[in-house]
Amino acid sequence: MTSPARTEAFSDGVLAVAITLLVLDLKVPLVESDLLAALLRGWLPAAAFAVSFATIGIIWVNHHGVFDRLVRVDRTLLYLNLALLMTVVLIPFSTALLADYLDAGHDAGTAAAVYGLNMSAMGLAFGSIWRHATSRGLVAGVDRMAARAFMWRFAVGTPLYVLAVGAALVDARLSLFIYAALAVYYGAFVTVPGRPRRAGGDGDAPGPGPAPPPCGGRDR
Amino acid sequence: MTSPARTEAFSDGVLAVAITLLVLDLKVPLVESDLLAALLRGWLPAAAFAVSFATIGIIWVNHHGVFDRLVRVDRTLLYLNLALLMTVVLIPFSTALLADYLDAGHDAGTAAAVYGLNMSAMGLAFGSIWRHATSRGLVAGVDRMAARAFMWRFAVGTPLYVLAVGAALVDARLSLFIYAALAVYYGAFVTVPGRPRRAGGDGDAPGPGPAPPPCGGRDR
Amino acid sequence: MTSPARTEAFSDGVLAVAITLLVLDLKVPLVESDLLAALLRGWLPAAAFAVSFATIGIIWVNHHGVFDRLVRVDRTLLYLNLALLMTVVLIPFSTALLADYLDAGHDAGTAAAVYGLNMSAMGLAFGSIWRHATSRGLVAGVDRMAARAFMWRFAVGTPLYVLAVGAALVDARLSLFIYAALAVYYGAFVTVPGRPRRAGGDGDAPGPGPAPPPCGGRDR
Amino acid sequence: MTSPARTEAFSDGVLAVAITLLVLDLKVPLVESDLLAALLRGWLPAAAFAVSFATIGIIWVNHHGVFDRLVRVDRTLLYLNLALLMTVVLIPFSTALLADYLDAGHDAGTAAAVYGLNMSAMGLAFGSIWRHATSRGLVAGVDRMAARAFMWRFAVGTPLYVLAVGAALVDARLSLFIYAALAVYYGAFVTVPGRPRRAGGDGDAPGPGPAPPPCGGRDR
Repeated sequence: MTSPARTEAFSDGVLAVAITLLVLDLKVPLVESDLLAALLRGWLPAAAFAVSFATIGIIWVNHHGVFDRLVRVDRTLLYLNLALLMTVVLIPFSTALLADYLDAGHDAGTAAAVYGLNMSAMGLAFGSIWRHATSRGLVAGVDRMAARAFMWRFAVGTPLYVLAVGAALVDARLSLFIYAALAVYYGAFVTVPGRPRRAGGDGDAPGPGPAPPPCGGRDR
Repeated sequence: MTSPARTEAFSDGVLAVAITLLVLDLKVPLVESDLLAALLRGWLPAAAFAVSFATIGIIWVNHHGVFDRLVRVDRTLLYLNLALLMTVVLIPFSTALLADYLDAGHDAGTAAAVYGLNMSAMGLAFGSIWRHATSRGLVAGVDRMAARAFMWRFAVGTPLYVLAVGAALVDARLSLFIYAALAVYYGAFVTVPGRPRRAGGDGDAPGPGPAPPPCGGRDR
Repeated sequence: MTSPARTEAFSDGVLAVAITLLVLDLKVPLVESDLLAALLRGWLPAAAFAVSFATIGIIWVNHHGVFDRLVRVDRTLLYLNLALLMTVVLIPFSTALLADYLDAGHDAGTAAAVYGLNMSAMGLAFGSIWRHATSRGLVAGVDRMAARAFMWRFAVGTPLYVLAVGAALVDARLSLFIYAALAVYYGAFVTVPGRPRRAGGDGDAPGPGPAPPPCGGRDR
Repeated sequence: MTSPARTEAFSDGVLAVAITLLVLDLKVPLVESDLLAALLRGWLPAAAFAVSFATIGIIWVNHHGVFDRLVRVDRTLLYLNLALLMTVVLIPFSTALLADYLDAGHDAGTAAAVYGLNMSAMGLAFGSIWRHATSRGLVAGVDRMAARAFMWRFAVGTPLYVLAVGAALVDARLSLFIYAALAVYYGAFVTVPGRPRRAGGDGDAPGPGPAPPPCGGRDR
């Protein structure tokens, strides 16, 4: 059995590296003159970078939300989490693909569809983690109704990712807009229910909380 | 003497960076038309990426398993761990080599053999860590029989890696398949024996475990 | 609600990756002879690397200072922090842009201005975090006057970044010098006020501090 | 004032990323035939990779050793540590330079000298951290004699790095050999004196140590 803490730490590491590697998708334009125009022409790749950055950032917020409600981690959850991380690690690739083809004049739809498939797979992995954790009693302090309501709110995004894949075949920029809107939706309206294990402070050095520990701390 | 915790944290960092750098092996195809066909032609590099990702992921699970049973770390173990990390850091290179030559029409066998040698060296380093830790009493809560049984189950993989190196000279794709099967074998059937130090929760915020702390735990 | 600790850990990860990725901006010169001269000609890119390294290093010091005074983190702060991290992740790109165009003979001003805009956005995000945290009572142990004085000292840098953007249009090297001076200013003269939660030691193993825990600390 | 713990965590992150980025210096050879011969010809770059990997690994071991003896961190130490990290971040660049020019037929001496200067700067920064920490009473549990003896053993390496820079001008491979020997010397014979704060276990979950904590844990 593995502790949620180290799984969280490893996941944080992968998420931090993946979100930072996105910057490698931004290429310095090599021009003979008028760098400003070249940079402004690159607004579509820059927008793809921003959407991917926001998406990984929000995955991190929600990933943390879920893991902070876990009391233990079983082997299945560990592998579901690795599957989620694999979809996250692929995001810099999908973003580079999208950035390169958004104004290549051809195949922008294919690139945007690949991006959408990556996002859908990520959503599926994330949903599977939550479903597995709640059905096997790995989470604490979340009531059944709240867990179900969260699942609904979360699942609403998935058909929209599929819609964006469809929209990609019409206009890649339209699908990029839908991906951005989905990031806003997940960031603003979808919150993991229940109370985290470490409410209001960190595990190591609690701030002045409402219930100060009485004498006799933990003994191991 | 070094604490297992910081060695674990550094190893986690290296593993997280290495697993994420794998994405740099996936190149955006530069085509004039039919991106979809170009992406589908790239299924072999994609498979190599997936096998390497799963392998590093499973190394992480087992590395965590071993370190969670260590009560202390000596200098030899520290250097054996650095040797293991060196083989892990080489995996993105071996994977790129394999991905580039799998359908180059020549030298695929050499590339797959290099990949297999990397994996064998990794297995050897991992086995040496376990052997050293158990023979010097660095682990706690693992009985002799279980430690030996684990060593056997673990060691079974090594000749198969050698077999895969041989298979690589016949057909590189066959060896890739053996590498994938070995990842599944290690992921599903090889578990580090004994009880971890931090059973069922993380060190900071223990969940409701079977053995509550005797003299007044912390109250929040 | 998210704990400051994990937000800190994720931010540390992003800052550590971004500061290290700066090295990718340094290109090995490919010359037929006289490598030394080629390296010496590259002193401007090297200076840009050093300034960016110092800047991210000082962001880390101050970020740590702010987060060590937080008692809790709300959703807005989480997203302001993601915005700050986005500006940090862009620094390797801006630095590469600056390094490539500083002695390209054209467009150095544009490159230096983009660099300055990146830095200004970073300063704005950082200031917003502090303003939000103090106005919503998320920080502890900082008096009103000290918080305001810090805000002033901090804010003084922002018009200087704007000045540097202007200077960039005259001479890119001049603006690079202003960026370096600003890094020194922030590093040497701007300190987050108040007492950190974990004064004088780390959360895990407090050193012999002036105020020993009253009712029997832990003994090892 | 900053806690040693977070400074350690950030430094670990930078060291972990830098050690892993070394793999990017290994290029997949693009050949029409005989990949094996091409790989074998690349033994010098591979040796440079191995020496740099060992060097950063040993920096990590010793960095951990020093920080585990710190009771607090002042501003000067923070900036000395940033200077050290800057020399570490430069190692993948110096290694790439060395790898590219070792068998270029010219300028190998210059490349090896740059590598040596990088290593000397690193040693200087490391020595300054130790000197500052001991002279300002930031370390605990290290007696004066032991601290001085360590400084001597440590400092012996510096003239050898300078020697290697000189040797580089005669034969770059000779200097690479000296760098390798120095890594072995620092790894095997130079140990930070004194007792670490967290002897024999990690801060969070101590194993079954000789002195189990009595009732009444920490109170904050």
